[in-house]
Amino acid sequence: MKKYCYLPVVFGLFVANQLFAQSDDPKAIMKSLYSESLSNGQSYKMLDYLSNKIGARVSGSPQAAEAVEWGKQQMEILGADSVIMQEVMVPHWVRGNKEKGDILSDKIPGGAQHVPVCALGGSIGTGEFGIKAEVVEVHSFDELKKLGRKNVEGKIVFFNRPMDPTLINAFEAYSGAVDQRGSGAVEAAKLGAVAVIVRSMTLNHDDNPHTGGMHYANDVEKIPAAAISTNGADLLSKFIKEDSKTGFYLKMSCQTLPDEKSYNVIGVIKGSELSNEIVTVGGHLDSWDLGKGASDDGTGVVQSLEILRMFKTLGIKPKRTVHIVLFMNEENGLRGGTKYFEEAQKDASHKYIAAVESDAGGFSPRGFNIDTDQVAVNKINDWKPLFEPYGVYDLKKGGSGADVYQMKKIKAITMELAPDSQRYFDIHHNVNDVLEKVNPRELEMGAATLASMVYLLANFGTGN
Amino acid sequence: MKKYCYLPVVFGLFVANQLFAQSDDPKAIMKSLYSESLSNGQSYKMLDYLSNKIGARVSGSPQAAEAVEWGKQQMEILGADSVIMQEVMVPHWVRGNKEKGDILSDKIPGGAQHVPVCALGGSIGTGEFGIKAEVVEVHSFDELKKLGRKNVEGKIVFFNRPMDPTLINAFEAYSGAVDQRGSGAVEAAKLGAVAVIVRSMTLNHDDNPHTGGMHYANDVEKIPAAAISTNGADLLSKFIKEDSKTGFYLKMSCQTLPDEKSYNVIGVIKGSELSNEIVTVGGHLDSWDLGKGASDDGTGVVQSLEILRMFKTLGIKPKRTVHIVLFMNEENGLRGGTKYFEEAQKDASHKYIAAVESDAGGFSPRGFNIDTDQVAVNKINDWKPLFEPYGVYDLKKGGSGADVYQMKKIKAITMELAPDSQRYFDIHHNVNDVLEKVNPRELEMGAATLASMVYLLANFGTGN
Repeated sequence: MKKYCYLPVVFGLFVANQLFAQSDDPKAIMKSLYSESLSNGQSYKMLDYLSNKIGARVSGSPQAAEAVEWGKQQMEILGADSVIMQEVMVPHWVRGNKEKGDILSDKIPGGAQHVPVCALGGSIGTGEFGIKAEVVEVHSFDELKKLGRKNVEGKIVFFNRPMDPTLINAFEAYSGAVDQRGSGAVEAAKLGAVAVIVRSMTLNHDDNPHTGGMHYANDVEKIPAAAISTNGADLLSKFIKEDSKTGFYLKMSCQTLPDEKSYNVIGVIKGSELSNEIVTVGGHLDSWDLGKGASDDGTGVVQSLEILRMFKTLGIKPKRTVHIVLFMNEENGLRGGTKYFEEAQKDASHKYIAAVESDAGGFSPRGFNIDTDQVAVNKINDWKPLFEPYGVYDLKKGGSGADVYQMKKIKAITMELAPDSQRYFDIHHNVNDVLEKVNPRELEMGAATLASMVYLLANFGTGN
Repeated sequence: MKKYCYLPVVFGLFVANQLFAQSDDPKAIMKSLYSESLSNGQSYKMLDYLSNKIGARVSGSPQAAEAVEWGKQQMEILGADSVIMQEVMVPHWVRGNKEKGDILSDKIPGGAQHVPVCALGGSIGTGEFGIKAEVVEVHSFDELKKLGRKNVEGKIVFFNRPMDPTLINAFEAYSGAVDQRGSGAVEAAKLGAVAVIVRSMTLNHDDNPHTGGMHYANDVEKIPAAAISTNGADLLSKFIKEDSKTGFYLKMSCQTLPDEKSYNVIGVIKGSELSNEIVTVGGHLDSWDLGKGASDDGTGVVQSLEILRMFKTLGIKPKRTVHIVLFMNEENGLRGGTKYFEEAQKDASHKYIAAVESDAGGFSPRGFNIDTDQVAVNKINDWKPLFEPYGVYDLKKGGSGADVYQMKKIKAITMELAPDSQRYFDIHHNVNDVLEKVNPRELEMGAATLASMVYLLANFGTGN
């Protein structure tokens, strides 16, 4: 078993603990968290290891297993009071060989034009000879249904509704388009389509296909589903306008293997006064495979670990217990988030008061999206003046992250760190998801912001 | 003379003008500005031309002259009512050959260790044989003075006070360190130093020296001044600790040539009702030479031009006259900003009510720094609800940009667009100042924010 000992700073923890007196002045504590993160932050160094030494971490892969082991060791090295390994069975999808996509039209010299495509995560393959069929372009499920079986059967459906660039929050633009990726194959197969091609989920115009989760339905035939780069989508659309008989050749060798055993890694910081109440914070260890999972969600993982490091280094002793959770399988199954929720629901000896996620990138922190009633949101806004010196202004009602939202059902307040969103979908689920696209200062500031919220929740509660 | 016709969109301007009814609902106008910039923004395309086709634009260089010509043509193509070429004589400093820097110590195998250095802008050269001398490290002018002539004479002074990483606003960290770069040579020469080496102005730890302006004093001997990369500075400091006799070899062939004639380029949009009142907005055309001047200040230049394009495209007719100013020589002389101010001061037929600058990078816009009394700042804060939907929250009292601050003397309200500052000094004045470091969406959002402020100032005034 490898030992990951690239963080020599942690050997000084026990000394540091003695040096810093525990205080409960939130202004002073937050100042110390931001100063520590911006002077000595270790998030970026951890992210370098996770993304470059371990690499992409698709659920069920050897790299995902290595990341679990690394996460456990980090928790131990950084001084967690205990580490819980929460077993969970996860899907094991593999991409296989590099995919191939060609636009086919008499209008093209030579008859074929290569375009960048990739399999969507969870898709079946095309078989070794690929699939060749006429393409029908649609922009919504309504438009698809109006076309009806007679216009769809035997064809490849091309979903080409772009993310709306005029929306200021890029995640809203994503939400407005991602149904095509998630449910496109099911909706198209219902009308007899043989495959789907989906415009990549990005606001960029480039040549990188973006993967991401898709699902099948039990009673609907499974058909292959691919993403096409935005430039490729524009080109395909142009050819379809010029030649209604435009076809597409798609070849993918992806497949789903039997489920694998994996784990959520939970580092516990035992509360000094109200140890039966729990504040959860985390990111997800698994990633897609085209990049290295640096942004999605290496950033959330290392920021969560950094909370543990900073609390120990600065001698911050939370009154309530803190669970630092490295979730498994957020991308294609949510088995880890679901498992954590199910165990929490069964756990009669603890009260889970809040669950915070970081899965929106390591960009400059702007606020938190809080998924609870307005009364509780208003209460959390009492902390607004504490965050404002750090440029963190938005403590707003909004959707929390995928791994924590179920915790609402047991009355935890759920929320997500909300960094600046403009660059997120440049990097998301494609070859650009690498360390170089993460800015060290922005990442460390996000860690300080996340740590500050966890400290406030753990020491001052939510009143719920 | 080359024609720069890569913006076909402008040929549709006159049609667009007919389609959009003039309205004075600021909410609707701002919505149209943000939507236009995020859907059809041309800032990034213009920045590609300016930074990659023209390249770095040191005052007095052929590239700076080409940028002036390009700026004038852009103003004409984009439909300025008139273009004023405001002549100004500028310094003409040239870097010469690549600089050489070696740490010299018996502790180093071979006796010398190469480190990355560059001449500071305006520095004299070292002569062809370079300068070799013992190094004395200081962190402030006070420390230097305390050392006194006996410890400084004949030596190279190494200024090594880092920017303070714990300051949230990176510009504050810069302000706290940049005296070393600007005045280090004068202060060291007063005590008989033979050269100065200054730690690069960045929060990064890397191998890129960052240049920037320095000055001499009339009655103090001129000595060469270089920047050293932050990693190089750390290494030099380490060797000095180990060996008090550590020396340095510096070679630079930079020199200052005779002044050159250049121009501020001013595009005028004539006010529809109060044409004798002027709102000024701009960025600076000149840049340093190590990168391509994409961020500093290509972003401010193209965002300013984009205001003109969007106003024309959307049929926005400002009530007051708008001056879109591409300033010359911000980096090493401020001759353009000073010239514009002097002409404005002499101009009895116009009242200059506000001057807005964009010279803080093309990152996500967060607000404006407004350099006026609190009463006027409060008045501008009446517009805060208009900006909030776009994540622009900070309409705060603060220093305006170098090219516009003098306009205060004639009672204009001066301000600067304040984007997120975290990445600014990664890129600033070094090899990384290239297009790839600018995010298209962030840049275009900055343009919309700048355009919105100019529109509000032009149509609703400042009350001053």
